[in-house]
Amino acid sequence: MAVGAPTSLPHLPEIPGFRLATAACGIKNGQTTRDDLLLVAMHPMASVAGVFTNNLVHAAPVALCRQRLPQGRAVALLVNSGNANAVTGEAGMRDALHATQAVALLLDGQPENVFVASTGVIGVPLPMPRIFDALPDLAARLRPGDWDKAARAIMTTDTFPKAAHRAFSVHGHPCSLIGMAKGAGMIRPDMATMLGFLFTDAAVAPAALQTLLARAVATSFNAITVDGDQSTNDTVLLFASGQAGNPLLDDPDDPAAAPLAHALEDLCRELAQAIVRDGEGATKFVAITVTGAANPDDAKKAAMAIANSPLVKTALAGSDPNWGRILAAVGYSGAALDPNALSLWLGDLLVLEQGCLAPGYSEEQGASVMAADQIAIRVDLALGRADFTAWTCDLTHGYISINADYRT
Amino acid sequence: MAVGAPTSLPHLPEIPGFRLATAACGIKNGQTTRDDLLLVAMHPMASVAGVFTNNLVHAAPVALCRQRLPQGRAVALLVNSGNANAVTGEAGMRDALHATQAVALLLDGQPENVFVASTGVIGVPLPMPRIFDALPDLAARLRPGDWDKAARAIMTTDTFPKAAHRAFSVHGHPCSLIGMAKGAGMIRPDMATMLGFLFTDAAVAPAALQTLLARAVATSFNAITVDGDQSTNDTVLLFASGQAGNPLLDDPDDPAAAPLAHALEDLCRELAQAIVRDGEGATKFVAITVTGAANPDDAKKAAMAIANSPLVKTALAGSDPNWGRILAAVGYSGAALDPNALSLWLGDLLVLEQGCLAPGYSEEQGASVMAADQIAIRVDLALGRADFTAWTCDLTHGYISINADYRT
Repeated sequence: MAVGAPTSLPHLPEIPGFRLATAACGIKNGQTTRDDLLLVAMHPMASVAGVFTNNLVHAAPVALCRQRLPQGRAVALLVNSGNANAVTGEAGMRDALHATQAVALLLDGQPENVFVASTGVIGVPLPMPRIFDALPDLAARLRPGDWDKAARAIMTTDTFPKAAHRAFSVHGHPCSLIGMAKGAGMIRPDMATMLGFLFTDAAVAPAALQTLLARAVATSFNAITVDGDQSTNDTVLLFASGQAGNPLLDDPDDPAAAPLAHALEDLCRELAQAIVRDGEGATKFVAITVTGAANPDDAKKAAMAIANSPLVKTALAGSDPNWGRILAAVGYSGAALDPNALSLWLGDLLVLEQGCLAPGYSEEQGASVMAADQIAIRVDLALGRADFTAWTCDLTHGYISINADYRT
Repeated sequence: MAVGAPTSLPHLPEIPGFRLATAACGIKNGQTTRDDLLLVAMHPMASVAGVFTNNLVHAAPVALCRQRLPQGRAVALLVNSGNANAVTGEAGMRDALHATQAVALLLDGQPENVFVASTGVIGVPLPMPRIFDALPDLAARLRPGDWDKAARAIMTTDTFPKAAHRAFSVHGHPCSLIGMAKGAGMIRPDMATMLGFLFTDAAVAPAALQTLLARAVATSFNAITVDGDQSTNDTVLLFASGQAGNPLLDDPDDPAAAPLAHALEDLCRELAQAIVRDGEGATKFVAITVTGAANPDDAKKAAMAIANSPLVKTALAGSDPNWGRILAAVGYSGAALDPNALSLWLGDLLVLEQGCLAPGYSEEQGASVMAADQIAIRVDLALGRADFTAWTCDLTHGYISINADYRT
């Protein structure tokens, strides 16, 4: 059901300073038909930045990564799919800790520099013996370049792997950035059941890396919604191995950091959009832009209210140009507005002009825009200069089918 | 698909001071197969109280009622279904005004004392000639007691009419209260595509009536959600004809007002629950109670977050005891909480006890609770003494079918 999904992953080159390996260790119900464990080793110690869910009920790996982020250094990342290690109490925290200790032992590092992420079912203890059994072989098989396997190992309900590459240069030194993400449901701003991992060989100080990541996430992973739910596990981690040989970037606003900032933003947006294209049951990919808002907060509120409205999303599913539902969502979004100043476009088609139906607009024209599988909706509030674009998908029978029997 | 819906309306007696009539005047597409216009006349001038949508994009009748409410007196109520008269610009406001002028003329009253409500499709002008043509005959046919026809005339996507009656007494004078409501989608706190009209013969001053209505709505119409959308037309109006002969109630906290307050709250809750039972595509009726919150706001936030979560609602549809999704919703609700203090029950079944899976809980037990068509979910935050109960329904294929082609 994915909308405009890539038919295959792009070429993902090796990046100096990162080695990886995956394994099928049967984390979910003992099924070993697909990889569900990923280990990434970083040598020498890389810089790390992270952004996590705001959910107060967050998973053990999120709590552990948050504790470890301030020291800014990583030697490894361990990710499992099939089990979220969330709502698993103190035992869950102990499991996450033990996993990082085992990884540190194998890689000759400190547990404090090992980062972890889990995704999958909530409330079930991690099958630690299976993970412990798999780790030594995983560590022995680490090698550069297996990004496609890695992108597949972190999938849960995803229907296609999501990964991309950008090349850029810093002070004349060619650098690479590779990112991968997973997520298809429970997606909303402040992320969701989504995981995103990014790797670059540029040399960047941890604090600068954190600022660059936070900026990129604001207009990418935090600008998408599938169902408005927010998960306990949302995590985006960015690692910089420093092997590209560039002079260390320690100011995010240094012009020399701009190519990295641009590559990061661009790649995060591509991954975020891929998550929406793979939205559970999605048949349409929709960009919602609000312009003319009084301030950036209002622009985001209005765009996200439209993107989250079940009535807008079902209208999209039905190719129904039901612009009344779009306006209703803007009206309850909390954004300041004047109903008589609002204009609205479906694609390039002007539907409402300053609060009134545009002369010449017809339902047939509207329906023809809505019939496409990629749709742009724009609302102009005509109050100020702030804008925001959110990406979402339609709400279909497919979403209900996937989520009404996820576990059974 | 309605859950536990009444097979027929209860007996709804005449109430002194109210006469009504309905007509099929083809407001939606000229179809005159069902009543779509309701006129209620009140003599002598009744007290009126009202609560309206918070949506900044609100319909013309909402704006007009808001203007007229402060004077506190009503001679008539005109309601149409099939067209919301929303996002209709200045012309829509003019149409609402003209309709009330026509009613005032026929009933020998002032337009300022005529209240209006509309429900149906957004963005289409009201067919005023049809309404003007129907009004004289409607006024000529006014008579007491046709409440069942009235409850049917205000329906849109509702699958059953919603009306109920309560008897109470004030200072020994027997009084009646009748209420009716419509709404099945676009339902959430601060109401939605819902209309509610209540009529009593008790003598109550407008200010006291307003306080009593606002209190009753807070725990009834503002405690339900079907899809989290909020409409442009939500309106609840309460009229008091004063014909019961009781000494005027002018203090909402006067013990003599308690029987009315109780009847009002009870009847509003019954009507609100009927809206959820008739939720678009609903196959389950679910009461969600949060206890032990630090304050009433937090209790409501947490309960409504659960009630609005698409993932919780699809789990309900699938009879899946997926309590992880319930906890995730509580976690992002914005309510203060300690994950290790949370307890959770499905029906009477303890699932989580202070953050840990309850010993003896089994999926089979959980699934058996979730298989019922009426389900109670309770979360205890163990932080304070505030609680709130919200009512919702599941999210099913039926909801998608209804809303993906509402207009086509």
